[in-house]
Amino acid sequence: MKSGKLPSDVLEQKIFSNFRFKREEVLVRPQVGEDCSVLDFGDYVCVLSTDPITGAANEIGRLAVHISCNDVAANGVEPFGLLLTILAPEGTTLEVLQDIVRQAAEEAASLRVEIIGGHTEITQAVNRIVVSTTAIGRVEKDKVVKSAGALPGDSIILTKWAGLEGTAIIAHDLAKRLDDRVDGRLLENARSFMEHISVVKEGMIGGRMGASAMHDVTEGGVLGALWEIAEASEVGIRVYRDRIPVRPETRAICEELGLDPLKLISSGCMLITCRDGGKILKALRDEGIPASIIGEVVEEGRTLVTDEGEVPIDSPQSDELYKVL
Amino acid sequence: MKSGKLPSDVLEQKIFSNFRFKREEVLVRPQVGEDCSVLDFGDYVCVLSTDPITGAANEIGRLAVHISCNDVAANGVEPFGLLLTILAPEGTTLEVLQDIVRQAAEEAASLRVEIIGGHTEITQAVNRIVVSTTAIGRVEKDKVVKSAGALPGDSIILTKWAGLEGTAIIAHDLAKRLDDRVDGRLLENARSFMEHISVVKEGMIGGRMGASAMHDVTEGGVLGALWEIAEASEVGIRVYRDRIPVRPETRAICEELGLDPLKLISSGCMLITCRDGGKILKALRDEGIPASIIGEVVEEGRTLVTDEGEVPIDSPQSDELYKVL
Repeated sequence: MKSGKLPSDVLEQKIFSNFRFKREEVLVRPQVGEDCSVLDFGDYVCVLSTDPITGAANEIGRLAVHISCNDVAANGVEPFGLLLTILAPEGTTLEVLQDIVRQAAEEAASLRVEIIGGHTEITQAVNRIVVSTTAIGRVEKDKVVKSAGALPGDSIILTKWAGLEGTAIIAHDLAKRLDDRVDGRLLENARSFMEHISVVKEGMIGGRMGASAMHDVTEGGVLGALWEIAEASEVGIRVYRDRIPVRPETRAICEELGLDPLKLISSGCMLITCRDGGKILKALRDEGIPASIIGEVVEEGRTLVTDEGEVPIDSPQSDELYKVL
Repeated sequence: MKSGKLPSDVLEQKIFSNFRFKREEVLVRPQVGEDCSVLDFGDYVCVLSTDPITGAANEIGRLAVHISCNDVAANGVEPFGLLLTILAPEGTTLEVLQDIVRQAAEEAASLRVEIIGGHTEITQAVNRIVVSTTAIGRVEKDKVVKSAGALPGDSIILTKWAGLEGTAIIAHDLAKRLDDRVDGRLLENARSFMEHISVVKEGMIGGRMGASAMHDVTEGGVLGALWEIAEASEVGIRVYRDRIPVRPETRAICEELGLDPLKLISSGCMLITCRDGGKILKALRDEGIPASIIGEVVEEGRTLVTDEGEVPIDSPQSDELYKVL
């Protein structure tokens, strides 16, 4: 098989189908649009998400903290603990390892997350550094927000700007190629978008203020995440292209490379559905988080309304990022 | 750096020292002899342990379930959920992946553990299959057994036979080399030792019946685990070589290769300390688990008593297994 996550039909039919033994302590199982497991601990539930970073990204230690903490936050739950596993190839220096660990420690502390354990190993099994994290959150049983809770009539809020993570990655990794084609100041700004990839703050606000559903945007971009929230909630969605904020940096880079910013990886964006969009919008902005109402939940149909007419929103395919990296 | 876990002084001074941010929800942090994190969830605690298998072992799916479930069980806690992450190199067939998943599913179900999530990815970052698991258990707050609870005067129980896992690994991996030097029937028996590498049952019994401390034996063997339990509990130990059971299969293989069975990796063995050794010994045997009282907890000193005199038990070095594999 080729690199990448397994296609979802293969996952469901060939992998998940083996997992038949069930425990009553397990309240929510991961599925399309739900990235976390929710476990019964009496008055509280335990919310868990695990993710590896295999792409040996720039700032892998920093990123590794966010990917799993974001998932937990998308349930409206504050992550407080993190397991950190680092596998590094032979010849890795202690300095490189320490840098990753320092990044992870700093970033976790900034989210008020304790690194509670893990594993560090030098091994011939990897040929570049792989970092896996498992984030853990705790909340009262009735307070978990799921991707599956969106109801027709709800507003759909998007935080920050479509394609923000992809913009930063491309601006970093393709710096040379873009150097004489995109304005230098825009490129530099674009690289700084990485500072915005946490959705923990907005997850807390959504959880506190009665979001009906939340989903953090990752691979597949804003449209992919919209499709997943609709799929999980068994509802329709109707969003308006001109209400989805796209930064000039993203626009410039995507135009140059022929990418769709709405299908570009966007950690740092949270989709929030809720009855009273204005109230949550205000709360987000009060905490300094840019946010926009981009459309509404409807009974049926998944539609992007553009100047040129209505376009169906389909199940996410390979992220736009992989067209250029 | 070279392959292997980082030396414990490097881990403590260069890695763990970065993790300064603490949360009050974290009741127990991993340290020498304590492999799990214990988290406060109100009436219950959540017990977590994570481990990767990077050695691409035979039956990696099966093993991956046990390594983390054993850690949770060593706290006297039943593991009930497992996160499973599989990273496989390009070109891995779906059949190979399915076989690993089937092994993990079967083995988890046999322990009454649900696989509650994870991640499966084909990636160029690995050059052989790497499987990581995180096991989760739940127990009332006052019922967690730690490695740190051993008290002078306690009996020390060992379940099963020293070196059992190492015996199985060597009999499998060095089959050709041993074929004309060790009896064929012994070798075949030795390979079947893998069936005994779970300590979940004995962990439950120890937890239920008032063990003062428990620790599952892994790398470094029985003597290594004894040192760790003494270190964690700040006590001495005195054990008797002739009371530590070693199977004829292990004896034959270790003699042939010049290995010390007491320093050979031994998943499947649990060390249990307790006031009333006879009571737990009977409970273990009633459930079909071989067990022996091998010595006692004392105020000071870590000593192995042999026919040739007393030998100090030192901090574990590289496992005997690596002398031959």
